[in-house]
Amino acid sequence: MSFSPLIRQMIEALRGLPGVGPKTAQRMALHLLERDRAAAAHLSRALDQAIAGVGYCRRCRTLSETELCEICTDERRDASLLCVLQSPADVWAVEQAGGFNGRYFVLKGHLSPIDGMGPDEIGVPALVDCLEGSEVTEVILATNPTVEGEATAHYIASLLHAASRCRVLLTVYRWVVSWNISTAARWRMRWQAAPRYSDLSAAWQGVQPASVPCWKSRTAWCISASLFITKGPY
Amino acid sequence: MSFSPLIRQMIEALRGLPGVGPKTAQRMALHLLERDRAAAAHLSRALDQAIAGVGYCRRCRTLSETELCEICTDERRDASLLCVLQSPADVWAVEQAGGFNGRYFVLKGHLSPIDGMGPDEIGVPALVDCLEGSEVTEVILATNPTVEGEATAHYIASLLHAASRCRVLLTVYRWVVSWNISTAARWRMRWQAAPRYSDLSAAWQGVQPASVPCWKSRTAWCISASLFITKGPY
Repeated sequence: MSFSPLIRQMIEALRGLPGVGPKTAQRMALHLLERDRAAAAHLSRALDQAIAGVGYCRRCRTLSETELCEICTDERRDASLLCVLQSPADVWAVEQAGGFNGRYFVLKGHLSPIDGMGPDEIGVPALVDCLEGSEVTEVILATNPTVEGEATAHYIASLLHAASRCRVLLTVYRWVVSWNISTAARWRMRWQAAPRYSDLSAAWQGVQPASVPCWKSRTAWCISASLFITKGPY
Repeated sequence: MSFSPLIRQMIEALRGLPGVGPKTAQRMALHLLERDRAAAAHLSRALDQAIAGVGYCRRCRTLSETELCEICTDERRDASLLCVLQSPADVWAVEQAGGFNGRYFVLKGHLSPIDGMGPDEIGVPALVDCLEGSEVTEVILATNPTVEGEATAHYIASLLHAASRCRVLLTVYRWVVSWNISTAARWRMRWQAAPRYSDLSAAWQGVQPASVPCWKSRTAWCISASLFITKGPY
């Protein structure tokens, strides 16, 4: 005996969720049908409403129900500081870490020519537009710690450098979620005080892994020593 | 910053799935919204259709889209053998194991007076009705290997015994999913050949753990030595 067509279809649909394999999907489907049809109906409604109601912020392109998101409309945010991230989940992660008071720009993933993801597809022109005529004087590139994420950061760094957009670009590598971003901030201040690359290297020496609160834990952030730029104040 | 209301509602709804905690629900919601809205829409549709279309078989009470399920309408099934299980998932598990050619009756969980689940709530009267005037001569009680499952099996066993319903009642304990049920069948045959309780005990001695194909694996079934009854042929 196999499952009936509707149950099979439900199992198949549940496999669309990340991290859900065939056995888990089966367990979920049977649980919902046997014990909690109200939860299934609630989930169906919530999915419909979210698909219809959640769009993207016009400025930073994170998920938002309004034209401009909560962060972009917050006047207390430091408009001179822009953190470039790969996904809306990263915005939430940095916000949870606390300590960062600038604004964000969310790319649509990373450069991946083999998958047809070029600068246009991930939204680099939109980032340039966003910087155009803005108050931003510093961009923090916080793409993922992968080869593609790093390539994306390098590409954007060289682009902005060529356009003399900013004084400092620093890649912050995200390992996971909850590192307290104050070490990054401390590092940035030293960097700003150091006008030349050689001074920068010296500044970086001061940031030892031990000074990052949970460096060894899996929920740690790691700052890379990668850095770019120099152009003098914008 | 926290998530917007619709995303929060979606995360909350995803937590209704078994085994999904807050972080997983968050990851799922962001994945669906950022990368796969089609999968979210598909899931929503599949849930709606399953809730509306999947009911219960009138006879065995497993999940079914028709009044009588595939197994109950299959004439090749042995109508003298009835396996009592705790949930539709168990029916599927026993079917996957293969080798059992009887019919099923699905209880709605187990006895749990503290949660208000008495014999009426789990469907014992329906089981008695199902046996009334049927061809069933043997009932296999395959409730879960928990205190409650065992209590449920004992309750039903004594009830059927008192009514002289059946010759053999055997609890088959389900550890997980895919044990080949042939050992249970072999055991049952020995049991049927043994008219007295003392002979039964001797018969059970012959079934060593080693004779169950994957006894040590986590995907093994385990047969208990618990047994009941005797009444002579029905």
